[in-house]
Amino acid sequence: MINADILVIGGGPAGVVAAVNARKNNPSKKIVLARESKVAVIPCGIPYIFKRLSSAGKNIMPDSSLKLNKISLVVGRAVKISPSKKTVFFSDGRKVSYEKLILATGSEPALVPIKGAEGRGVWRIRKDFAYLKKLRRAVLNSKKVVIIGGGFIGVELAEELSNIKGLKVSIVERLGHCLITTFDKDIALLAEKRLKQAGVRIYTNTVVEEISRKNGAEHLKLSTGKSIRADLVILSVGARINAGLAKDAGIRVGDYNGIWVDEYMRTSVPDIFAVGDCAETRDFFTGKHVPVMLASTAAAEARIAGANLYQLRILRENKGTLGSFSTCINGTVFGVTGLTESRARREGIDIVVGSSKCLNHHPGSLPGTGVILVKLVFSRQSGTLMGAQVVGPISVSEMINTLALAIQQEMTVYDFDTLQISTHPLLTAAPTVYPLITAAQEALSRIR
Amino acid sequence: MINADILVIGGGPAGVVAAVNARKNNPSKKIVLARESKVAVIPCGIPYIFKRLSSAGKNIMPDSSLKLNKISLVVGRAVKISPSKKTVFFSDGRKVSYEKLILATGSEPALVPIKGAEGRGVWRIRKDFAYLKKLRRAVLNSKKVVIIGGGFIGVELAEELSNIKGLKVSIVERLGHCLITTFDKDIALLAEKRLKQAGVRIYTNTVVEEISRKNGAEHLKLSTGKSIRADLVILSVGARINAGLAKDAGIRVGDYNGIWVDEYMRTSVPDIFAVGDCAETRDFFTGKHVPVMLASTAAAEARIAGANLYQLRILRENKGTLGSFSTCINGTVFGVTGLTESRARREGIDIVVGSSKCLNHHPGSLPGTGVILVKLVFSRQSGTLMGAQVVGPISVSEMINTLALAIQQEMTVYDFDTLQISTHPLLTAAPTVYPLITAAQEALSRIR
Repeated sequence: MINADILVIGGGPAGVVAAVNARKNNPSKKIVLARESKVAVIPCGIPYIFKRLSSAGKNIMPDSSLKLNKISLVVGRAVKISPSKKTVFFSDGRKVSYEKLILATGSEPALVPIKGAEGRGVWRIRKDFAYLKKLRRAVLNSKKVVIIGGGFIGVELAEELSNIKGLKVSIVERLGHCLITTFDKDIALLAEKRLKQAGVRIYTNTVVEEISRKNGAEHLKLSTGKSIRADLVILSVGARINAGLAKDAGIRVGDYNGIWVDEYMRTSVPDIFAVGDCAETRDFFTGKHVPVMLASTAAAEARIAGANLYQLRILRENKGTLGSFSTCINGTVFGVTGLTESRARREGIDIVVGSSKCLNHHPGSLPGTGVILVKLVFSRQSGTLMGAQVVGPISVSEMINTLALAIQQEMTVYDFDTLQISTHPLLTAAPTVYPLITAAQEALSRIR
Repeated sequence: MINADILVIGGGPAGVVAAVNARKNNPSKKIVLARESKVAVIPCGIPYIFKRLSSAGKNIMPDSSLKLNKISLVVGRAVKISPSKKTVFFSDGRKVSYEKLILATGSEPALVPIKGAEGRGVWRIRKDFAYLKKLRRAVLNSKKVVIIGGGFIGVELAEELSNIKGLKVSIVERLGHCLITTFDKDIALLAEKRLKQAGVRIYTNTVVEEISRKNGAEHLKLSTGKSIRADLVILSVGARINAGLAKDAGIRVGDYNGIWVDEYMRTSVPDIFAVGDCAETRDFFTGKHVPVMLASTAAAEARIAGANLYQLRILRENKGTLGSFSTCINGTVFGVTGLTESRARREGIDIVVGSSKCLNHHPGSLPGTGVILVKLVFSRQSGTLMGAQVVGPISVSEMINTLALAIQQEMTVYDFDTLQISTHPLLTAAPTVYPLITAAQEALSRIR
């Protein structure tokens, strides 16, 4: 029996951040982090192990932050939680007792009921180092890869693979556009354009009905009647929450099969917290449960849990997730935070939208100048910023974080009008056309 | 006599933004913008006309925003304002009457009492197209340029010139470090390091005592006893406000010889506003007058004036300037907003500082990964963010705007601890180490 004060189950970003923040708030407690595998893969980095990184081994989370924070590592699979004994049981017979338990058991790639989807040429993006090493090898030995699912993982993967010489990449997406659950249609179209420029073939409004292996290749029967061939198929159709361990222990699970948590990330069982993909996430505006599974959201939840284990610190509550997200397609950044226009309208919110298009340098004749597009969604009544989308060159990488902060601070369209910003010819848009301000001003003219 | 409703004097960023925003708020008024020269140079772009831009002509502000907003252009030099007749007189005899007058007369490079500083080989960074064309030619014909003054214009200029093959560049700075009035010493040292890596020679704690021309070259006698030779000398030692026109009209000028303005950018004379470099700027925290002359500050003031000409709209007041500033040296971004640590201590403010250093990609083995340094200054009592400095690759370009917004929204160290951010392997630091949060957490640990 290992006697921990604080036990974290799960070694992904949520688990690590929870453990590190538990340490910051509890200098003298014994903290143990348990994870299933010897090495922990960086989840967000997985799409980039095929070309930008020279091996899957380059995408490993270093254990230095655990060591630095005196967090003991247990490699093993937790199979049972006993809330009454305050003990977690592992598959190899080990037991770890706890005062406070943090579940960060994450998620797994979802399965789909496609006939043939379990075949040997069909892969998923599992956060499993050995599996990913094999997948990398298989991809590099392929001439044609089909990705089923045009969500952000599918899109990032397709973009990465498009950089491999001689490899043909296609995406099959059942909805009308790639990334359409994340961005508004106008922005999703720009993303698709970039993908196509990178050489990715996109089949939208298309369902894969069957996958069959013939003569060493995969044949995908599409709902359009067409059939496509591939050396390798990657399923990227969403995630399934790992909540079995919690459920078996009588911990309440919610709408999306995620672990129910309060604003301090406490589960329904005393002294047990849950963070990251395995915990239910509430939307910042509506309070509804939303299936947001992002490392950044996980990290925010983990910091809240880490600070509230032994005593609630009132300021550290979870206000709900904005689902802030950014990606990079063929050198162009796509970012979103809060509500898109389409989601706001679906929710029945009375909004005004302001957009702005400008150059990221001034004068625009400077080398490397690109176009920035900003789209802001405000509440018509209060003028509060409710959502933002940004497209542009690498120099706008952090712009979506500016906007996320603006939403969290409940900034209004009037605040933007007097916003003080910093501009530079080589770094930003001109002060005369800075897009956060001009987009807000466009919205303002529609409110009047 | 031209009868304007709204007359703007000055065609720099302040004037243009004021005119455009006057239009947004007054769709049917006749708006006239008067400037001295046929073409308007982009002030912030001037350092980049020597190498990155292929000619001085590439650094011209297009007049399209004037045309688009139906703003009439008068090219001429205003020589007298009659507040009683509400008329401005021009050097060529023309007169323009106004209901509302906005002064955006800007600034000029300062002169220094150095013997020989008026010589033909000594230049300044004037916002004058014809002059800059000649300077560009002279620089490209030089082998050795000495820049007097290591403020941001001198530094940007030196960095640009360092990219010209065969050209040797030196900076002579009277203070202990370049950029030391803008950044803390630790950050200024990093900037100097980048400059030196670019091949710029830096003489600090050094005053130029005399410049003399011998055998077709400039000889600079330094306070250190040394003497250096140059083909060309550029004086970059600060700016002098153009307030003569206002002063002659009986408009109040203040501490730095700038035009006194209230929170709505109104001068002491009814119906006359002033914005940009020519107007006095107050510090966001102390309310003191500070000699901040930045296009971004000018644009913020111009938007306030443009909105308040005929009626005060209470929300659009000037809260004082943060002096947000960023620059780029040899591919590295340096940004600052609000108070530096050293200025806060000089002002006697009880502060805590938190710093963070991390990589801008995750994993760090991704190509093009660089180091981000963030330094945050918080009030110890209230926990409010008072200042920030950022150093990093191009991907952090907008981070100083995130921080400027945080100061304007009076965010505290506790808000940062629960901050929701968006992260991406190719675009940002990892969610586990995102520097705005980890720097704030370091400060928080010092508050406790």
